[in-house]
Amino acid sequence: MNPRGEKSARRGRDARRTARAKASAVTQPYISRNIPLTELCSQEGLEIIEANADTVLQEIGIDFNDDTEVLDLWRDAGADVQGQRVRFPKGLLRELLKTVPSQFTQHARNPARSVEIGGKNLVFAPVYGPPFVRDLDGGRRYGTIEDFRNFVKLAYMAGPMHHSGGTVCEPVDLPVNKRHFDMVYTHMRYSDKPYMGSVTHPDRAADTVAMSEILFGKEFVDQNTVCTSLINVNSPMVYDATMLGALKVYARANQASIVSPFILSGAMAPVSAAGTLTQALAEGMAGMALTQLLRPGSPVIFGVFASALSMQSGAPTFGTPEPTLVLSTAAQLARRLNIPFRSGGSFCGSKIPDAQAAYESASSLLPAVLSGVNFMLHSAGWLEGGLASSYEKFVMDIDQLSMMEVLCKGVDLSENGQAMDAIREVGPGAHYLGCSHTQANFETAFYRSSIADNNSFEQWDAEGGLRADERAAKIVKQMLGSYQLPELDPGKDEELQSFMKNRKASFPDSNI
Amino acid sequence: MNPRGEKSARRGRDARRTARAKASAVTQPYISRNIPLTELCSQEGLEIIEANADTVLQEIGIDFNDDTEVLDLWRDAGADVQGQRVRFPKGLLRELLKTVPSQFTQHARNPARSVEIGGKNLVFAPVYGPPFVRDLDGGRRYGTIEDFRNFVKLAYMAGPMHHSGGTVCEPVDLPVNKRHFDMVYTHMRYSDKPYMGSVTHPDRAADTVAMSEILFGKEFVDQNTVCTSLINVNSPMVYDATMLGALKVYARANQASIVSPFILSGAMAPVSAAGTLTQALAEGMAGMALTQLLRPGSPVIFGVFASALSMQSGAPTFGTPEPTLVLSTAAQLARRLNIPFRSGGSFCGSKIPDAQAAYESASSLLPAVLSGVNFMLHSAGWLEGGLASSYEKFVMDIDQLSMMEVLCKGVDLSENGQAMDAIREVGPGAHYLGCSHTQANFETAFYRSSIADNNSFEQWDAEGGLRADERAAKIVKQMLGSYQLPELDPGKDEELQSFMKNRKASFPDSNI
Repeated sequence: MNPRGEKSARRGRDARRTARAKASAVTQPYISRNIPLTELCSQEGLEIIEANADTVLQEIGIDFNDDTEVLDLWRDAGADVQGQRVRFPKGLLRELLKTVPSQFTQHARNPARSVEIGGKNLVFAPVYGPPFVRDLDGGRRYGTIEDFRNFVKLAYMAGPMHHSGGTVCEPVDLPVNKRHFDMVYTHMRYSDKPYMGSVTHPDRAADTVAMSEILFGKEFVDQNTVCTSLINVNSPMVYDATMLGALKVYARANQASIVSPFILSGAMAPVSAAGTLTQALAEGMAGMALTQLLRPGSPVIFGVFASALSMQSGAPTFGTPEPTLVLSTAAQLARRLNIPFRSGGSFCGSKIPDAQAAYESASSLLPAVLSGVNFMLHSAGWLEGGLASSYEKFVMDIDQLSMMEVLCKGVDLSENGQAMDAIREVGPGAHYLGCSHTQANFETAFYRSSIADNNSFEQWDAEGGLRADERAAKIVKQMLGSYQLPELDPGKDEELQSFMKNRKASFPDSNI
Repeated sequence: MNPRGEKSARRGRDARRTARAKASAVTQPYISRNIPLTELCSQEGLEIIEANADTVLQEIGIDFNDDTEVLDLWRDAGADVQGQRVRFPKGLLRELLKTVPSQFTQHARNPARSVEIGGKNLVFAPVYGPPFVRDLDGGRRYGTIEDFRNFVKLAYMAGPMHHSGGTVCEPVDLPVNKRHFDMVYTHMRYSDKPYMGSVTHPDRAADTVAMSEILFGKEFVDQNTVCTSLINVNSPMVYDATMLGALKVYARANQASIVSPFILSGAMAPVSAAGTLTQALAEGMAGMALTQLLRPGSPVIFGVFASALSMQSGAPTFGTPEPTLVLSTAAQLARRLNIPFRSGGSFCGSKIPDAQAAYESASSLLPAVLSGVNFMLHSAGWLEGGLASSYEKFVMDIDQLSMMEVLCKGVDLSENGQAMDAIREVGPGAHYLGCSHTQANFETAFYRSSIADNNSFEQWDAEGGLRADERAAKIVKQMLGSYQLPELDPGKDEELQSFMKNRKASFPDSNI
């Protein structure tokens, strides 16, 4: 072969690869759905669940633990407060929830990456919370700040990932009381996509807001939402002091909270879909209404995390039909409240990124997308029931998210999409491979997977007969190898670092 | 440990296992959906596609090759016939299609296994057509009649598999011109579920009908449908003589055909969803209307097989968003014709039952189920773009089909499902594990997967750290090891065997 030709072919390949790499980070900042909604529950069913939730709120009530300020707020609002138990007269919460914005902007430091949360929009965010990480080379191990940075980098580079997320893995190598600084900073420095804040202590929420004020400006943060954070309900029907503390900080600062009943049905809620939904709706309404007492009009998202408990092993299960029914119905309930809904994402119980992981992930992700979820947490990287962040699964899931983007566009009904000219040109018994419509459209017509192998058996076999996770491992390395730090104003960076240094130094164990 | 106790524990386990094995073969004979339909295309979009299909039928037409009888039928019906090209005046086909039953019973020789096709019902049938089979031990190899029998056995034993199917794999070890006898007989003898007939030659279709008459009685077959067969359109817009021959035999015998445009968009149809749908609708309407010319009121199913061609490798791709849009929209179009719809199933392009296979399968199966498909071909066992029937994937897919059964039941809104007593009993801060509602419901409350591992990482690791396909391989062996032949009247069996013997002897190469 002519070496010049080879070199120029390689140059061509490199140029295309670079173009693709660039392209991957600049797809649309969020999805705006153009397909009708999937609704799995009847109107009658929704009305029954809402009436039952009202009964729970009125007759059983919700506990707000160790927070007299919150209890006073409820008393003043007209609720019945006995000890820590709060019961709500019918209609009170629905009235308070009227000031929740049905849609809001979460600003990113790069304005091109700001997302719209609510309405027809869908925002994907990465896995949240695992203490472990896993990859093919290193197996399963505790997460570190290096792993944390890697997942932030991957999310930054992944076109269909709209959000940098929060605890993409626990950086277990950093001290618990100070790791939130490095986590929040990593999102701010290594990505320019929107991010989530710390919720594990009210002070850590306040640190997140303070760092956001450095990044965006104090006044901007007060008037705009730059941070979305995850407030889990301690189901059944309890808000604990930690979560209430963080919720108060964020709501007062006009920052969004996702109020999420965290439910393993059979343990934290009844062992049935309708029972789980009733309790989750009651819990969610109470927590979300509290944000409106704290700052009317501040953004809040209704979230439901639902898994069915295996009544044999006691483990949570994923990708099974009951949670699908719960999540899809919860999305309907949220729409009836006119409040953005969070659920998701690519859930699985498998310990490795095998067929179990993929069946379960697709069976979680797809119905959630069809059901109109607005904020999809855990949309990539989730493994082992949320105990591990998987590098390979992250990029495999990203491929699925790309497909959701295309699916949500729906059937193209433009004249070009209708393709009547092509049908006329080709006619019976011929083929469309060379016709002008195909020539004009083939490059963009169909989704091209980055992971799937669609070659012949013989070619696949000759190329090593790799499994999908083995191909994914290569892509992980390619991505991390070609990562480039986004620009950040050096003054702001310095200010952030100095803020963290001072705050860290103020802790008693400041030597760590 | 007390040996008596051990023995009795083992007896208990065995009894439970036997009970489960029995249970697996006797779940509901078909699914009756109790959830609202997912519709991905707007009414306006459907009307555009229908109008365009009418234009195709009127202006471009469909070729009916090498069958003067069919051309005469069309001429007599008022169509414009030029050579083999038939063009249809507006409204003719819709008028003819009015006699198609919107729902029909396909009888099984065991009446408890008869299925309802159409309306709210969903029937799962196995993979159809692969020349190869694959399992973990033996790898990829040509299919044999032993493999064929094995897949029929697995489908018979699998509770959520409603149908025995047709060419579960090609028995390549048998002569092409006679293998249909053994294939049809295998379905009749090794299963008692409904089956599909041979379509590769009109005589083979006639043999299928003759064997069905032995099994069910001649008069019963004339008045009832006992066989559903797959008639592929030679897209674009051609019906060939083989398919027309088989279609005629079945329609005249009151047996169902699935008229299926077989489309790789970009090759056999335009490189767009709306263009593909337009052509498929036109093709389907022409073929289905022909069945009504042959025997008004005979059952027919509209089928669409749609895959997007990889414009890079030329290979079909699966589990991608464009075919999902096509299939879901085609189901809507079929409902507007009031005709049962076939699509499906667990498609994938992967060469092995890995994560790619599972992502793609779930992304094909789930939207098809939600979109209201009535007859789901290829719902288990499909691998490698339909080139291989996979033993392990078959049982993994069966697990998914079981979940679809549960999903289609929807949210249980009974008093027990609402679980208000449980919420009252437990209250804030407690748990539901021991409450009376949980005790009463835990055994049946949540789907229990036969393949998924939901144990802890440590336990999974201690048990060998198996992948899902490795666990599936064990289940395949267990199932085939415990298979029991269903009863069949020995007189009928003898008659079937003697029919086959005589027919086989009539072929010139009768020594094979």
